[in-house]
Amino acid sequence: MNYPWPEPGTPLHQVATPMPVINEDRLSANIARAQAYCDKNGKHFRPHIKTHKIASVARQQVEAGAVGLNCQKVTEAEVFADAGFDDILITYNILGSVKLARLKALNARVAKLAVVADSDVTVAGLAATFDTDRPLTVLVECDSGAKRCGVQTPEAAVALAESIAAAPGLRFGGIMTYPAIGGAEQVEAFMTRTMALLSEKGIECPVRSSGGSPDLFAAHLVPSATEHRAGTYVYNDRSMVRAGHCTADDLAMHVLATVVSRPAPDRAVLDCGSKALTSDLLGFSDYGTIDGFDGARIVSLSEEHAVVDLTDCATPFREIGEMVRIVPNHTCVVTNLFDRMVFHRDGVVTRVEKVDARGTVW
Amino acid sequence: MNYPWPEPGTPLHQVATPMPVINEDRLSANIARAQAYCDKNGKHFRPHIKTHKIASVARQQVEAGAVGLNCQKVTEAEVFADAGFDDILITYNILGSVKLARLKALNARVAKLAVVADSDVTVAGLAATFDTDRPLTVLVECDSGAKRCGVQTPEAAVALAESIAAAPGLRFGGIMTYPAIGGAEQVEAFMTRTMALLSEKGIECPVRSSGGSPDLFAAHLVPSATEHRAGTYVYNDRSMVRAGHCTADDLAMHVLATVVSRPAPDRAVLDCGSKALTSDLLGFSDYGTIDGFDGARIVSLSEEHAVVDLTDCATPFREIGEMVRIVPNHTCVVTNLFDRMVFHRDGVVTRVEKVDARGTVW
Repeated sequence: MNYPWPEPGTPLHQVATPMPVINEDRLSANIARAQAYCDKNGKHFRPHIKTHKIASVARQQVEAGAVGLNCQKVTEAEVFADAGFDDILITYNILGSVKLARLKALNARVAKLAVVADSDVTVAGLAATFDTDRPLTVLVECDSGAKRCGVQTPEAAVALAESIAAAPGLRFGGIMTYPAIGGAEQVEAFMTRTMALLSEKGIECPVRSSGGSPDLFAAHLVPSATEHRAGTYVYNDRSMVRAGHCTADDLAMHVLATVVSRPAPDRAVLDCGSKALTSDLLGFSDYGTIDGFDGARIVSLSEEHAVVDLTDCATPFREIGEMVRIVPNHTCVVTNLFDRMVFHRDGVVTRVEKVDARGTVW
Repeated sequence: MNYPWPEPGTPLHQVATPMPVINEDRLSANIARAQAYCDKNGKHFRPHIKTHKIASVARQQVEAGAVGLNCQKVTEAEVFADAGFDDILITYNILGSVKLARLKALNARVAKLAVVADSDVTVAGLAATFDTDRPLTVLVECDSGAKRCGVQTPEAAVALAESIAAAPGLRFGGIMTYPAIGGAEQVEAFMTRTMALLSEKGIECPVRSSGGSPDLFAAHLVPSATEHRAGTYVYNDRSMVRAGHCTADDLAMHVLATVVSRPAPDRAVLDCGSKALTSDLLGFSDYGTIDGFDGARIVSLSEEHAVVDLTDCATPFREIGEMVRIVPNHTCVVTNLFDRMVFHRDGVVTRVEKVDARGTVW
């Protein structure tokens, strides 16, 4: 895209909108705080790259002490392998000949690669692809209450672990879960029961991986877990503030937008639509908050317009051509819409980074 | 993105998912039907490129008889100018020095370029940028009931038209509206009143442009309009079927996805999350329909997973590793997530086109 990305040194008010921008100091502080917490509580920390999708930010996370990276898809992991990362967990059932062939090639060049599985079908595909020359580590994904993927019981987890352990080309690496918010007790119960059953069978369970930014600072409530995975914590967003994970002072991403129309006294229109903010509501009834304008509600989005209802906004709103700063509901999905990301310190652009893994859905 | 895009001749069941695919025959039929309707009713037809964002599809639309293209942002128009299109209407208030400079450069190389304005601020910026050497055509955007942008009354439209006509570098081109669904009467009333007032002032109003796919086949109910703009009609989606614009047989886009988990009898998980379908609900309570599985509801999306509730699905659902075909709620936003788009005829890939204007939000 032939867009005039700002040079370092450009003040943010000169940046063409809509544009998400990342506060360097808050980014660094978020990385440091999460790592310090995990260090203090004896957990490995494995950041999920979905939120930033940028190799240099992942480098900041690893340099701070992260044990490795978490990716969701094979093509995503390829991007970070290309950038030199050597410890990657893909928390996804990889299926089908195209992806399995790519996964095998990836395993040949990444020092520590692991995937998850929650079914015999997934394990059978992996077992038929990998061999003893270069075995693949597989964790069993467990559903500890989030009701997405994962085996439903510790007994099922053990049965799948046995299948993995029995496959010559696979190594059973442990168990993994993505808990419902506040599900520490359920996660701990699932893990301890599974570990006990595995122990009875003489099967080692070296890694017990839990995850989620909302649960990050509750990771100490899951003593059985050896590592925690989290993505959103690195930038934070409106949903993280609501979850109590952070405060407004920890928000590293804002979306800059310009007022393009003031058609009626109770209505303003911004130049950031669903192609900039996405339609993710995450349980909210509007599409983000506008800094400094309490009561101004982004009530609808079309692709290139955000309609703001000013009925309950006591502060005189910005005029046409003026800029506002939006806290998005969900930061990860905003990242996926932009080819590059603008970073700043105190409102002055520091760098513009390619969003290396934008669009990786395979 | 290093993805194995399928070669022409590949059967769709071999395509790695998630992947939106376009049915060539339905695409051609949708283009032909809309053009025939507009021809029959004496309207110019101006397709909005937002839905496909692909130069070769725009070429099909123009070859069928479209008068020109409709874009929303300057960078979007640049992409289609680069591809040789010479009649482009940008239905947006263009503001700020960066975009105005780019708009001026664009006007120097596009034979027929026009923009819209709904405020004195927008007109002042345009007037200060353009001169008599290469004037810019400006239409007044009118709010005929959709409550997005647009002047609120015919009187305000005329006042703005006078400002445009008085600027040496601008030419008043007419009026434009984006109506609420089913708003033909309101559009016609706004247009006739504005035209009468302009006529009293001796101001010509050559173009009266209305728009929207839901209202496309009701364009004859707005006799005053000279042209109609529509985007979604070219692929169609679940919302267009609901609006009565088309039937399921006119759906040109489907999203192919694979079952990656069957964790419980009432639940399946697909590999298409919000990074493939987007979270656009458009008033629905779920995220698309799954062809052939009535009652299967996509109840939640995370970035890479779709959770399907099978409680009310009487048909035995697909097993892990098998493919399904989804009708998305909103096709335009799906297009914006993919670097390339796969086309097929009778389930065999015909071509893979770059999504030329993906990510153009400026």
